[in-house]
Amino acid sequence: MNYDDQNIFAKILRGEIPNVTVYEDDDTLCFMDIMPRTDGHCLVIPKTPCRNLLDASPEQLAVCMKTLNKVANAAMKAFDADGITLQQFNEAAGGQEVFHLHFHILPRHEGVATRPPGKMGDMDAIQAHAKAISNAI
Amino acid sequence: MNYDDQNIFAKILRGEIPNVTVYEDDDTLCFMDIMPRTDGHCLVIPKTPCRNLLDASPEQLAVCMKTLNKVANAAMKAFDADGITLQQFNEAAGGQEVFHLHFHILPRHEGVATRPPGKMGDMDAIQAHAKAISNAI
Repeated sequence: MNYDDQNIFAKILRGEIPNVTVYEDDDTLCFMDIMPRTDGHCLVIPKTPCRNLLDASPEQLAVCMKTLNKVANAAMKAFDADGITLQQFNEAAGGQEVFHLHFHILPRHEGVATRPPGKMGDMDAIQAHAKAISNAI
Repeated sequence: MNYDDQNIFAKILRGEIPNVTVYEDDDTLCFMDIMPRTDGHCLVIPKTPCRNLLDASPEQLAVCMKTLNKVANAAMKAFDADGITLQQFNEAAGGQEVFHLHFHILPRHEGVATRPPGKMGDMDAIQAHAKAISNAI
């Protein structure tokens, strides 16, 4: 499968469409999921193109994991969370909807289920959650 | 949170309890989940101790990702799969049950849902699935 540089995360990386940034370094970007399944639901992507886990290089995966560790720990603090669920989907049958490698970080609290997928979040809340994580990094 | 070296994956790594191995190298072990949520459901763990994403080192995460890429591609071939779902749980609220870092690889097929958690699989089938992935690496 090929990489399509018209996917929305490629557009975000080129600054063609906006995002709510949580964290950024030379190799990765972390930004909020606008359909958050828990408060603080955010995504980590490499800045270089790859479709998913199947075609990613060891370097692309390693830089993502470094950022995931950093953001997950910050999210634990920011939300006084009890845990983190990490998800990463490969191809449509695997759950993938945008074809640029991305990892989902979902801060979790005891006894609180995730919300159903596909529902737009409140943008003010999303902005506030991004700031809370950012400040804890 | 501390690492408890009596967790079952630590026992597997020490050879104290058996596992159905898919792949092994100096840094990682991949073995079958005995409660498979899809055919070929397997786990990748680092050989060195860490609890989860929150306390893992960049090196521990990088070696896991390398193996995940290898096994995911092999599973796609072995099962003629349409996708892969990757999950990784941190602390009980995040879905974690065994407190040694592990990543779940679930081979997926179009239109086939995952099975409910917590149900023991058929050991003959699990052995056959491990062999199929192994042979495709």
